[in-house]
This record gives sequence, C-alpha cells and structure tokens, in this order.
Amino acid sequence: MSSSSSRGAAATGALPQRVHIVGAGLLGASLGLALTRAGAAVTLADVSPTAAQLAADMGAGTVAEAAADTQLVVVAAPPDVTASLVVEHLRRLPEATVTDVASVKGALLDAVRRSVTGAELDRYIGSHPMAGRERSGAIAARVDLFEDRPWVICSDEATPPERLAQVVATASAVGSTVLHLEPDFHDSSVARVSHAPQVMSSLVAARLARMPVEGVALAGQGLRDVTRIAASDPGLWTQILAGNAAEVRTVLMEIREDLDRVIAALALEPGALAVLAGAIAAGNEGQQRIPGKHGQAPTQYATVTVVIGDEPGNLGRLFAEVGELGINIEDVRIDHATGRRLGSLDLFVLPAHVQDLVDGLLARGWRLPDHAEKRTEADTPNEGQR
Amino acid sequence: MSSSSSRGAAATGALPQRVHIVGAGLLGASLGLALTRAGAAVTLADVSPTAAQLAADMGAGTVAEAAADTQLVVVAAPPDVTASLVVEHLRRLPEATVTDVASVKGALLDAVRRSVTGAELDRYIGSHPMAGRERSGAIAARVDLFEDRPWVICSDEATPPERLAQVVATASAVGSTVLHLEPDFHDSSVARVSHAPQVMSSLVAARLARMPVEGVALAGQGLRDVTRIAASDPGLWTQILAGNAAEVRTVLMEIREDLDRVIAALALEPGALAVLAGAIAAGNEGQQRIPGKHGQAPTQYATVTVVIGDEPGNLGRLFAEVGELGINIEDVRIDHATGRRLGSLDLFVLPAHVQDLVDGLLARGWRLPDHAEKRTEADTPNEGQR
Repeated sequence: MSSSSSRGAAATGALPQRVHIVGAGLLGASLGLALTRAGAAVTLADVSPTAAQLAADMGAGTVAEAAADTQLVVVAAPPDVTASLVVEHLRRLPEATVTDVASVKGALLDAVRRSVTGAELDRYIGSHPMAGRERSGAIAARVDLFEDRPWVICSDEATPPERLAQVVATASAVGSTVLHLEPDFHDSSVARVSHAPQVMSSLVAARLARMPVEGVALAGQGLRDVTRIAASDPGLWTQILAGNAAEVRTVLMEIREDLDRVIAALALEPGALAVLAGAIAAGNEGQQRIPGKHGQAPTQYATVTVVIGDEPGNLGRLFAEVGELGINIEDVRIDHATGRRLGSLDLFVLPAHVQDLVDGLLARGWRLPDHAEKRTEADTPNEGQR
Repeated sequence: MSSSSSRGAAATGALPQRVHIVGAGLLGASLGLALTRAGAAVTLADVSPTAAQLAADMGAGTVAEAAADTQLVVVAAPPDVTASLVVEHLRRLPEATVTDVASVKGALLDAVRRSVTGAELDRYIGSHPMAGRERSGAIAARVDLFEDRPWVICSDEATPPERLAQVVATASAVGSTVLHLEPDFHDSSVARVSHAPQVMSSLVAARLARMPVEGVALAGQGLRDVTRIAASDPGLWTQILAGNAAEVRTVLMEIREDLDRVIAALALEPGALAVLAGAIAAGNEGQQRIPGKHGQAPTQYATVTVVIGDEPGNLGRLFAEVGELGINIEDVRIDHATGRRLGSLDLFVLPAHVQDLVDGLLARGWRLPDHAEKRTEADTPNEGQR
C-alpha cells in the first residue's frame, strides 16, 4: 500500500467557499461550526429538520438545500445511507466535489461505483475524519472537534488534483492532520484499531450480564476501561461492522487463534507459562505503539504532582499561583480516593515548562512528592486487580 | 454460593495491635501506612531490605521479623510465593492469625491445606483487597489505598470467630468494605471481572504490533481505553492466570463461543445483522452493571461544564471563585483539544452542590453551556471511531 501524511498547514489549495453538509449530527454540525469560522458559506440539510435547525442555531451554517454553485458537498450521515446520498449529490450537482465522513471506505467506494462512473465518479473523494466525543448529536458539536485529529482522504490517479486540493484544504481548515490512504489500507487499519476492539470490548462486557451482584462488585478500573466502549450504540455498530465485515473478520480470526493458544495453555501443561507470558508481552508491544490523544505520545506532557489539602480553596490558591507563573496547564488529574486528609493533584504541562513550574511551586511552599516525573503509563496498570 | 457484605463500620472485633506485614510493595506498604495511622504497631519484612526500609521510612512500620506476640500476619508478596510464606508464618507463630492479599484464593487454600491441618490451618484466613493503582512498589504506597474498596475475606465454619473478627477489623480500619465470599465464588468472579479482561485486552493490543505506523496513527480513545491494561506486567500476570487457570479458561471459552458467532455472522448471511446487533447489545447490558470508582455509580458526581479561555490565569480565577463558594471539587476534566480559543472544563461535584455552583458561577459571569448535566457515560463512547 502507498500512503503519505501531510500536516494540514502544508496543504495546497483554497478552502471551498460554498460548502453543503448533509447530516447535522455531531460530525456534520461540528464541521459546519469549524468551516463557518474558517470563512466558508455553509448550508445544512438533515432528515430531521429539528437537528438541522439546532445546528444552524449553534452557528454551523444555514438550513437549505445545496445551491447549484456549491463547490463541496460533505455527506455526514449514518453509514448505511451514505452511498446513496453521495450518488444523489454527484448527480444533482454536476460541478461539485462530493466527500463523506463514513468509517468504512472500500465498500462505500464500490457502492458508489455501481451507480456512477467516469468524470462523475472522479468527483467523489472519500474521507474519514477520526474525530468524535462521548456525546452525540448536534447539541454536542464543537468547533474544535477536528483539531489535531487524523483526517483520512482516499483518492487515486483518476482524482482531479484541484478537487483533491479542495478536500485537503477543508480538512486543513478545521485543523486536522491529513493522511492520504488507500481505501483498503484504511479499512484494514480501522478494523484493527477500532472495529475489532469494539467487538472484543462488547464480548468481555457481555460476560458480566448474568453475574451475581457480589461478583460484579469486585470490578476495578481495569474492567471499566476495557468495557467503556461496550456502551456503544448497537444500531450504529451493526452498520459499521457489516460495512467492514471482511477486514473485521480477518482481525477477529487472528484474535481467535491467539485465544485458542491461551485457552490450551490454561491446561497448564509443560510450556504453558511461556505461552501465557508471551500473550501478555505481545500485548505490551502492541499497546506501546498507540499514539496518545491528538497523535501525541502518552509522555508528550510531563506531570508535576502536587500535594494538596482536600478542602475548598486549595485548588483556587494553587491554580492562581500557577497562573501567576504564566504556565498553561494542559490537563489536570485529581486523585479520586475519598476521605483522606491529604490528596494529590497531577498537573500536565509541556516538558519545557516543568522546571519553571516546579521551582515556582516549591518557592511558594507547595509539596511536590516526585517533582517532574513523567507519566508512567506502562507501569502495571492492572495492578489494582492483584 | 453464599456471600454477604458488611460495611466496614459495622464490623465487630478490635483491631489487632501487633501486625506483621510480609512484603513491602504497593499493597504491603500502603497497608502499613493505614494500620499505623489506625494505631497498630506494624513490623515489616521484605526479601528486598531496600524496599522494606523505604516503606518504613514512609511511615509504614518498623523493619523487623515477626515478634512472638504478633497477633496478625499479612502476607503481601507475589502470588507464587504466598502459599509458602503463609505456611511458614503459621508454623513460626503458633498464636498468630495469618492472612494474605493474593488475587486467587481457591488454589492458595488448597496449597496451604497440603502443608498444614486442623487448628493450624484454622488460623489461616485468606483475603483479597481489591485495591491498587497505576504505579507499583513502596514508593507508590498511599495511606488511603484501601478506602471505599472491596476487601474480600474467605472463611468457613471451622474459622474461629475471634480470628475472623481480627481480619474484618483490619479491613475496616483501613476503610475497606468487607465482602465475605467463598474462595471458589471469588475466583470465578475475578476471572470474569479482571483476569479474562486482561487476556482479551492483551490479545487486542497484540494486533497492533505489526501494523504500519500509518495505520496505528488512526487509533482513538476507544482503543486506548480497551488496551490500557495491556501494558500490565507479564511476570505478574502469568502467575495470576496460572493460579486461576480453570476459572479463567471457563470465561475465555464463553468469549470464544460468542466470538465464533460474530465471525460467522461477518459472512453476512441472512440473520447476520441480528447477531452483530445482539453482540453489541449484550455488551451494553453487561457494561451497565459495572459499579463506578469506590463502588459508586458513574453518575454519583454531577458535572458542571464551564467555558474557559485556554490561557494561563483563567483556571486560577475559576478555582479561586469556586473556593469562595465553599464548594469542594471532586474531580476536574479539561477538554484536551489544543489550539482553540475557547475550551471547556468539567467540574465534578456532589449533586447537592450543583445548584450553588451553577448559581455562583453564573453570578460571576462564567459561561455554563449545559449547567448541571449528569455524566452520560452510556452515550456511544466509541463515536470517535465512526
């Protein structure tokens, strides 16, 4: 497969000035907000007039059908209606470039190909912004949803460069990092990083359905993490899994092979321990390859842990003094344990700011048990279940 | 199975005054800190003199062998040496009650039974505090590690009530919620809520080891959550899985059955979509049964979202004013998106404080987009991978 990545800022081409977004959900509405801010004139449509109007009220654009001079159409609808909406707009708007945000690209392209060909087909450029959040719908829309997120664009030799530039400029305008990937490579990748993990999280969570409550009470943070996405919407995920069935099946077959080895090893015949250790070690290797939020490594931010009293006012004093130091806090994590007299707070800052922060806080009398210790996410996170 | 739960406060029996802890890791050192605070005289031993001294320096007790008048011995050593250390101390201290913190109880009890019997065996009471954190070793010890966490105690008819009361009083003194469970029920439960989830997280993460980097770049928060515990220590987990092999095997076999059904459904024959939707829906059902941190439901805290500028000083002003309101912030979550002009901050407070916080912040001119909206963790969390 061939693929290349280009930072949004480096992309060529002007941002389309007239954009029509089909679907006013989380992605469609957020894109409308971001493109409006970027200076484009955005029109919105949704099968739900309420959703479209809500997105418009939030500043995501104007509720209207696509104008004849629309330069770019973005289909941000559920996966199972995306192909027909793409085809519909390719035909309705003979001048427009049409893209979409669906999570599966190969089958979608095949479906579009079955309806349109030639120059008409060349105006379709599939894309997949890897963005989202826990809440759904226009009400959860955010102007910065796509910032520093990967935006996959699938084009081929036949794609007119000026049309490709329109989609690249759009992704860049909302702050995404553009990844040019072939549809099949994209689909096999998301099967591995998203679709198969969703299935396995759901199967693990399903084991809890019939447990006595005294057993579920033993759940720890590890289980909560592994099963968080098991709360995902069955309707949406049935569409996603069916749309990428072959690739998801390949990954699940690999998992089943490893699973069979582990199950066999649990008979504890000679050599079994090496198989068990090997399975956990292979997981270490894979887990360490995962980039952090926004593609940053988990250690991108340095952590400064501060001991604080667990009473009102202390946080205020701490953050006021951090503000005086002129240092921006990227993230904050409070230790959850309750009922303690002393608690601790992790401040996440850019490594370059650590020394100033540490010096400044120490000078102001704060207790920093381990100074600018890096996040140690590789420390046996499931220790809690020993 | 029979099981009952009693809140620590309700437990009877006096806290043992002379406690010996074998193993100065995260659990042993934290227990030493908590029992010392509770007024017990704690002695510590560890195969590593450095670890023992570090724990002592932190206030977890005194480095010494168990005195003859020791009332309670707590073995907090790795699983594979726990049985022999339990037996050793049962024999060395004919008056003492001996317990442990290992994550597998049935096989351990069998191993102890093979070495000791009768009155000697009756002095052993297995337990398993379900506590831990991401960091390991004495350096990560915390006096409040066990607070509001389940502490499983395994006893039977032969257990002398006064000795059982000692262990219950110990668990209660460190703030744990005591759960009386039979060893087999405990082991089958942790296989489901901890051991099998660890295996599946590792197998999912292992799929990433050979991926092209352009593919791994598509990872989102869902994958990070599912695979976080895949960073766990292979040595430790080989011991845990081997120690609970039969129960883990049972759960993994169930997962494989479901997995086979999903793999077959991905051939997309008639009826396939119902199988896929059923698998995700079953995961919803199981996931909803998981209690939150400290056994609290995820909605225990209410969220107040505040719009803030992403510059130094704003956090200080916000927390200073929250402090003025006399409201304690249980947790804080900053929206990670970078480079934005406006960001938002989620303040987690007890529901009773929401109205005061909202009124107070609005009165001070802060923007609260959705006021005291409850956390909605069940909202399609994997939306990000659409």
